[in-house]
Order: sequence, then structure tokens, then C-alpha cells
Amino acid sequence: MKSNFPQRGFSPQEFELRLLRAQKIMFKNRLDAIFVTTPANFRYFTGFDSQFWESPTRPWFLVIPIDGKPIAVVPDIGESYLTSSWLDDVRTWPSPHPEDDGISLLAETVEELPKRFKQIGAELGREMCLRMPIIDFYKLRDKLTSDVVDGSPSIWDMRMIKTPAEIAHIEQICHIASDAYSALPSMLSEGETERDAANKMRIDILERGADSTPFMPAISGQGGVSQIICGPSDRVLRRGDVLFIDTGSTYDGYFCDFDRNFAIGTLSSEVARIHELLWQATNAGIKAATPGATVEQVWISMNKIIETSDTIGSNVGRLGHGLGLQLTEPPSHRHGEQTIIKENMVLTIEPGIEYAPGKMIVHEENIVITEYGSRLLTKRAPQEIQIIL
Amino acid sequence: MKSNFPQRGFSPQEFELRLLRAQKIMFKNRLDAIFVTTPANFRYFTGFDSQFWESPTRPWFLVIPIDGKPIAVVPDIGESYLTSSWLDDVRTWPSPHPEDDGISLLAETVEELPKRFKQIGAELGREMCLRMPIIDFYKLRDKLTSDVVDGSPSIWDMRMIKTPAEIAHIEQICHIASDAYSALPSMLSEGETERDAANKMRIDILERGADSTPFMPAISGQGGVSQIICGPSDRVLRRGDVLFIDTGSTYDGYFCDFDRNFAIGTLSSEVARIHELLWQATNAGIKAATPGATVEQVWISMNKIIETSDTIGSNVGRLGHGLGLQLTEPPSHRHGEQTIIKENMVLTIEPGIEYAPGKMIVHEENIVITEYGSRLLTKRAPQEIQIIL
Repeated sequence: MKSNFPQRGFSPQEFELRLLRAQKIMFKNRLDAIFVTTPANFRYFTGFDSQFWESPTRPWFLVIPIDGKPIAVVPDIGESYLTSSWLDDVRTWPSPHPEDDGISLLAETVEELPKRFKQIGAELGREMCLRMPIIDFYKLRDKLTSDVVDGSPSIWDMRMIKTPAEIAHIEQICHIASDAYSALPSMLSEGETERDAANKMRIDILERGADSTPFMPAISGQGGVSQIICGPSDRVLRRGDVLFIDTGSTYDGYFCDFDRNFAIGTLSSEVARIHELLWQATNAGIKAATPGATVEQVWISMNKIIETSDTIGSNVGRLGHGLGLQLTEPPSHRHGEQTIIKENMVLTIEPGIEYAPGKMIVHEENIVITEYGSRLLTKRAPQEIQIIL
Repeated sequence: MKSNFPQRGFSPQEFELRLLRAQKIMFKNRLDAIFVTTPANFRYFTGFDSQFWESPTRPWFLVIPIDGKPIAVVPDIGESYLTSSWLDDVRTWPSPHPEDDGISLLAETVEELPKRFKQIGAELGREMCLRMPIIDFYKLRDKLTSDVVDGSPSIWDMRMIKTPAEIAHIEQICHIASDAYSALPSMLSEGETERDAANKMRIDILERGADSTPFMPAISGQGGVSQIICGPSDRVLRRGDVLFIDTGSTYDGYFCDFDRNFAIGTLSSEVARIHELLWQATNAGIKAATPGATVEQVWISMNKIIETSDTIGSNVGRLGHGLGLQLTEPPSHRHGEQTIIKENMVLTIEPGIEYAPGKMIVHEENIVITEYGSRLLTKRAPQEIQIIL
């Protein structure tokens, strides 16, 4: 660990804080417990840091009761690590065992809890999924005497507001990626490929202290890009291209999510004009994101600037979102979304314009909401697009 | 792309081949269509290569009918890429739109298909999950006149047998990782940390032409490791340690999954003995994995050698598994599993022993099943554990 980085992992006090807030929300929503199955939710309450989630073979469960500490119900391959965590109660079964992969043990664990509201929350709703076979979920439901209801609104209520320790982690990875973006123009030149650009960024980000880069599209096109989600390819960077690089890299589990654009060799007046417009829209979004505003208001503040460009618009469907243990989290800055912004939310501000068919430019910064406004976590993109020669 | 690597992406003929095999299996299992939601299944039928799956906000759907080409039902952010794929029919909706995020469009698409068996397969079963909110899945089920049944046995029947092009991809990443493991001892020394070891391997694997390393635990301990799924940490490598590194790295979507063990400075006779035993168990597993054998027989061949060690055993629950577009895939080499091994399966052979409390050693190689036996895809681990000075 580099010396000025926030410490890896979190204290038991941090987990207590998260748990207490979770239990308040569960009480409000009349849930006796929540059980979670996905990496981010499991890690949020336990600190469990494992790349083993890549293997879909075994389900992992964590039961968060309305009183007392979470209970892990996990394959026995996880026992040694979890018993060294802040948890007191770790229950295991021999897995893989598709005939009953933890379902009876999970049902027993939930059934032992007091039944006050007779409702158990699960990851059934928005921007969540159940990481277990659905046929096993049906069996579980049949074994429980309480109703299994959608716990995702409760979980997002917990996770949308970050703790100071979480914010420090996100800021760390934002700084690492900001520095790597700043260094890139000196490492890259016309004639190299999109893949070269991505690989240089990946290695630089790792050497600066990040843990992983699960997300790094690097996409190029004359005057802009036709899409922002697939790539890199072996396309060679040519004079007149815009090179778009976006990254979700992580430090100790927490993501940044922001992009930068570079002009190869030269830039047209049209690219300069759209880049300036998006830079101004980003400013407007950052300014609008204050406690008490809705995310729709943030969207409006950017959209009215984008609309002055008289262009095709964008197919992204929103102009920013939350982030944290995942690359994207609720809320979404979009028309109609009434989520109210609160202190300690971490958000992206992400205006984009397709100014001609197949020519899209997208800006993005990450901010944290403060008592009266917001604060940048990324180092602000230069107002004029940087040129790579 | 390095010149001797298999070409990235697959031809339309390759996708036709996969589709025809899928449709035969669907006919046998009486399914009018299958719809899939997860990255590996979506990519298997479309070639869609995107890191955007990291964002859980939007669901993506692919409908594979029993006749005709797959139909993509995707957020409009994916339109430009998918219309350039081998698919003819790409349907989109503006997303995110939690009020109806593709559910009506998916239901219409499925309802238009001929209803012969009145059954639609979905990813409801073993080693699968549904990448969509379950509350949306309930709505979808209500909109469909056919039954939604578990399609995962059919999907695994398709994906367990690899095509020659898939095998070439897996072999490529196995070679890259093998070479990186061979080079590691010269790059690492006592006094560095687990994290140093992992980062050096990550960078080397990337520079050798891999795309990503979603899985790389690097774990150390005196004479063996206490677990194999979490790490690296900042633990300093000391004389007498065993350093275990496992990796699932990818080339063009396909995984390797194998480990190597290194002794730091010296090794005990106990470590040497267990290492030799596991090396022999691996040989036995490779030899037992032939067409017509069950995966249980592969397990037995290794287990009877492991049992001679009079040790604690292992908590992994199996001694190898399938791999391909995912780090781990069915089958599992374990007691009681009767899956029959067939030509062109790609498998790991993974015996492990905990020879004293907290002292585990695990070996792993990757093989492809041939007409009469099997062929190594990895470069076989040295019979004697390598020492890092």
C-alpha cells in the first residue's frame, strides 16, 4: 500500500455504523431481515474481498437481521476467511452440492429469527439481481413462513449515502485514474491502436496503486465515436480522430467512473465547439447537484445546454448516476426521476452529445455531495481537448 | 493482436454452427425458444464483447428461437454495435426506464414466435442466474402465454462441448499464462509482498497479449496456504512460505484457470512430499479424463492418491470443473456426479490437500478432451516445486 492511501479494509466500527443505518431502514420498511447474494452487497456488510465471485458454481448468502450482527451462510471454502472477519456467526455447508446448495441451511437460519413483520427482503428489484439459481429461490420461498419481498429499495437507501471512509476510497481511485489520464498523451502517439491506448492506461493505473480495471472501453472515430460501450479494438489512431477512454477502476473494492477525450493530431472547429459545450454542461451539472435538489433537476441543468447544440441527442438514456462498490448505482439523472440528492451521495456528471450520425462525445466527472453543494473527486478535465501528436 | 494468436471474434459460420447445435438441443428438450440475460450466454450466440456488463442498470436480452437467427432485445445504447454483428433483428428501447425496462418488448418478441411446445427456456438453474430484476421476471412470466421453464441444462449441453475455434482461444490464454508463470521466479524475490507478485503477473500477462485478469488470488503461508479464494494482501513473502497464485485471465472472452506454487527460499520435506503427491494425482486425473468416463471417475482417480496422504482433505468440494467463457463451468469432478465426458470438453484437473491445519496446497492444469484421451492446454507444472530466492 502506498503511504498516503486510505487504509485497506474497514474497522468493525465502520461495519457497525453501516449495520445500524441498515436496521433503521429495515424497521421503517417493516422487514425482519434482508438476505443478500451479490458481491457488492455481501462486501458492504462483511468486507469480504474475493475475486472468487467469478466462479458461478456456489451461492453465498448473508442474512442481515433487524437486531444483531449479520450471519454468513457460505460454502465451506469460505469459512477460514469469514471467521476472521468482524462477523460472529458463520455457517457453512459442503459445496458444490446442487441437490441442496445451502438452501436448507439458509432457510433454517432465517426461520430462527424473530418474526415481527413476517417479511424478508431480497435483491428482487431495480439494478439488482439474485445470484443464485431461481429454481433454488423458489424452493427457499416455499420453506419460509414469512413473505419474501423486494428489499432493493431498502438496500439502495443504505448504500446510496456513503460513509466518510467509503468516500476516501472513491476519491483515492479517482485521483489514481486522473493522474493516469494526465500522463497518457505523453505515452501515446498517432499510429498506435485503441488496444495500445487501453493497455498503457491499464498498466499505468495498476502501477499507481489501483487493484483492478474491470471497465476500460477505449474507442476512436473521426470527429467522435459511434458508441461508448464496446472496445478497444485494433483500430489504428489516425489524424482527426477523437479517442474516448472511460474507466471504472477500483481501489479496495470502490470504483471511479469517468472518461477523457483526446484529439489525435488535430481537431475540427466542430469538435472544439461540442467539447466546450459539454464542458459547460458538466459545470452546470456539478453546480445543480446540491442537497435537496432532485436528480431530474441535475438532468435539466445539463440538458438545456445540450439542447442548444441542435444535434441528434444521445442514446445513453441519462446524464449521470451514482457509483461506489459498483461502477453504476442508482440514482439516474434523467427526465422524471425524483430521487432527492443528499449529503454524502457520490455521483457522476455525464453529459453527452451525438452531434452528427456516428459522432458522439461524452464528458464525465465524479463528485461527492457536501452540506451545501458538491466537491469534485476527479481532477477536472481540461477545458480544451488535449491533442495527442 | 500478436501474429500467431487466433483471430479475435468468430465468423458467421461459427455462430451458425453454435445455433444449429442449440436448436437441436432445444428440439430434444421441447423448447420453442430460450432467452438469455447474462454476459457469457449473450456473447456465445452474438460475439457481443463489452465491459459494459459491469453496469447493472440495464437488462439485455437475447431470444434464441428454435428456427431462425437469434433476436436481440437491448437498450438503445447497444444498437449501433449489435446491428454490426451477424444478427439481422435488433430491437431496442430507451433505457434506463425502470417502469418498463424492456419487459413489454421482450414479451412481444417471444409471443410472436410459433408456439409448438408452449415452453420457453430461461437461465433458472444450476450455475446460472437471471441478470434482470426478479420482479420484472415475474411481470414477464405473466405476459407470456407459454410456460417459462429451466433452460440451463439445455444451455450447458450446448456450451460444455467447445468448438475448435473456442478451443484455440482457450489454448492461447493458457499459453500466455503458462509463460508468465515460468517467468515469475526471475521477477520476484523474498521480501516482496503477495500484492507485488500479483501485480507483476498481471502486467506480464497483459503485455503477453491477454485482455484481462478478472481472477488472480496470490496467497502465501508457511508451508502452505489457509485458503485459496481471497488475496493478494500486503503480506511479505518469507523464507519457508509457499506462494500460491491462481489465475483466470482472458483472451477474447475465453478463460484459462490454473495455478502454480512456489517455495520461498527453501522448502520442507513435507511440502516436497505433498507437492509430489499432487503432481501424481494431477497425472492420474489427466489420464482418467477420456471420452465415455464420468467426471466422478476422474474424481476417484485423483482422490485415491490424495487419500494415501492421511491428511485433513480439502474444503473445495471438487477436484476440477469445466471452463470456457466463464472461469468455472459445469461439470464438477466430485463424488456422485455422473456427467459423461465427451470429446471437445475443456476441463480443469485440480487436486488439493490440506496436510496440516491451515496448510493447503492445490495443483491445477487445463485439458481438452480428444477422440481417445485428453491433451494439455497448459504447459505442465514442473514436477519439483520451483524455489524463489
